[in-house]
Amino acid sequence: MPQRAREEDLVRITTDAAMDVATYGFAHDIRVRFAETDAMGIVHHGSYVPYLEETRVAFLRESGHPYVQVRDHDGIEFPVVEVFVRYLRPLRFDDVVTLRLRVAWVQGAAFQIDYLLCVDDTVRASASTVHAVVRVDGRPTRPPAWLTSLGPPRNPLSP
Amino acid sequence: MPQRAREEDLVRITTDAAMDVATYGFAHDIRVRFAETDAMGIVHHGSYVPYLEETRVAFLRESGHPYVQVRDHDGIEFPVVEVFVRYLRPLRFDDVVTLRLRVAWVQGAAFQIDYLLCVDDTVRASASTVHAVVRVDGRPTRPPAWLTSLGPPRNPLSP
Amino acid sequence: MPQRAREEDLVRITTDAAMDVATYGFAHDIRVRFAETDAMGIVHHGSYVPYLEETRVAFLRESGHPYVQVRDHDGIEFPVVEVFVRYLRPLRFDDVVTLRLRVAWVQGAAFQIDYLLCVDDTVRASASTVHAVVRVDGRPTRPPAWLTSLGPPRNPLSP
Amino acid sequence: MPQRAREEDLVRITTDAAMDVATYGFAHDIRVRFAETDAMGIVHHGSYVPYLEETRVAFLRESGHPYVQVRDHDGIEFPVVEVFVRYLRPLRFDDVVTLRLRVAWVQGAAFQIDYLLCVDDTVRASASTVHAVVRVDGRPTRPPAWLTSLGPPRNPLSP
Repeated sequence: MPQRAREEDLVRITTDAAMDVATYGFAHDIRVRFAETDAMGIVHHGSYVPYLEETRVAFLRESGHPYVQVRDHDGIEFPVVEVFVRYLRPLRFDDVVTLRLRVAWVQGAAFQIDYLLCVDDTVRASASTVHAVVRVDGRPTRPPAWLTSLGPPRNPLSP
Repeated sequence: MPQRAREEDLVRITTDAAMDVATYGFAHDIRVRFAETDAMGIVHHGSYVPYLEETRVAFLRESGHPYVQVRDHDGIEFPVVEVFVRYLRPLRFDDVVTLRLRVAWVQGAAFQIDYLLCVDDTVRASASTVHAVVRVDGRPTRPPAWLTSLGPPRNPLSP
Repeated sequence: MPQRAREEDLVRITTDAAMDVATYGFAHDIRVRFAETDAMGIVHHGSYVPYLEETRVAFLRESGHPYVQVRDHDGIEFPVVEVFVRYLRPLRFDDVVTLRLRVAWVQGAAFQIDYLLCVDDTVRASASTVHAVVRVDGRPTRPPAWLTSLGPPRNPLSP
Repeated sequence: MPQRAREEDLVRITTDAAMDVATYGFAHDIRVRFAETDAMGIVHHGSYVPYLEETRVAFLRESGHPYVQVRDHDGIEFPVVEVFVRYLRPLRFDDVVTLRLRVAWVQGAAFQIDYLLCVDDTVRASASTVHAVVRVDGRPTRPPAWLTSLGPPRNPLSP
């Protein structure tokens, strides 16, 4: 995990993920487990975070850069430094959730992924994660070229 | 869970929680479970979300309004509609984490809670959750007076 | 959840699940999530329990009796009353685990499911769950005929 | 994690934990988190496993042998090789569960811990875990003297 010396160095997350499904280039299905529900009868809000992670891992695999290979061969890790989730409509047991993913930006030693969680073509939640790009010793490093090529150089939605 | 008809109605989370520990009026200790760690040797980023929830529940209890009583007696629930976590330095197995909490704002049928997660007086993470105030049928309702009295009427940090 | 008046009424779990893969008629694949690992670098022992549940749900679906339909239409639930897991060799992040399932026995108002967790044709763990058959009000009831037909009337391995 | 060459070497768990609270010498309280409940309105059966772990860790700490010290200083780990839980009556959100623990036996390179989970002096569940005693390289080793002194040399309940 990277140590940050100065608060002003923080890359700020953008919490206004585009709601337009067409702008998301990757999709991955997850079926809700009963263990992920809570006593309100819906999926617990904390259960969404592993859904995002599973989708990122699937995206990296499909991109030809599986996480284990990136870590063990390239010596690079992508620790989560910020996470944001907006819950719009609940998910329920046995729902098949289509998680749509796009790379929002790759900038400096960080990048942001945006997600839409959809059931029956209805957006149930949106989310974003910001990741540092670090060597295994925790020091920030330049993103590999294949990663930079996946997203715009800066967030096109930011002012 | 409230249904939202219009995207523009969303109360926007403020992701710039003050880092000054002195502005947080409530503290609650949680010892990290081994089950909450991951193969990076640190606490998994998703494990933080239940920590925030446990701290909210403890805060409501100490405020004289336990969640179960609010739900069953007052007929009000506070579903999470947005969550944000910023990871600064890792947490490890057996760490005793002091979670500091404050009510950031209470406005309309929503409110925001801010959190600092500290170990040995070092801030390891900051976080915020936005909650709707709804009746048990899911319709938005006015926050009870005791809740409004806990925080400023609008976010003092927002522009 | 059924209340049990007498300890001697308990149906005893059989912890000697057959290790012969060929005796298991159903298989379901689950890919390990990073969130399910722990600081020992392997899958946390508690993470296996939701794997068993996901596999049961998939088995019921394939059997033509999805859990939601059994609960909502037939008014029957199968709460877990006993669980046993034997960990033989670790599971790791990104492993694709083949969970093999069989109905060990259906007897009275209960039944047992056995599981083998395999990676690359190696058994990594075995497990069993015992379930009560109850109406939605919690009272024990006779298993439906389709369930009884899925397994032997009593555990063929028991003395 | 120890590799086991022969199935017959397995130490068999004893699933008949004594129900007599008085035979349990250690107690540890855990308050149920909302995240640990499920859509049946009760604590999910998988959530019990981390409760057992937290209680073991608290027991080792009170015994003067904290897990981190045992692992880092003594070079010994206690991986879970078997777990058993019997669910008698449900746990609910905000329940304060008293977990009672005792060492059932210490034998060879393994030991068993028994647990009772109580609320309001009612036993809600019983459980047992069997642990291997291994060096950090995974090879079985003799239990340290302080551990052997904590329990009987073999299970007094076994035939």
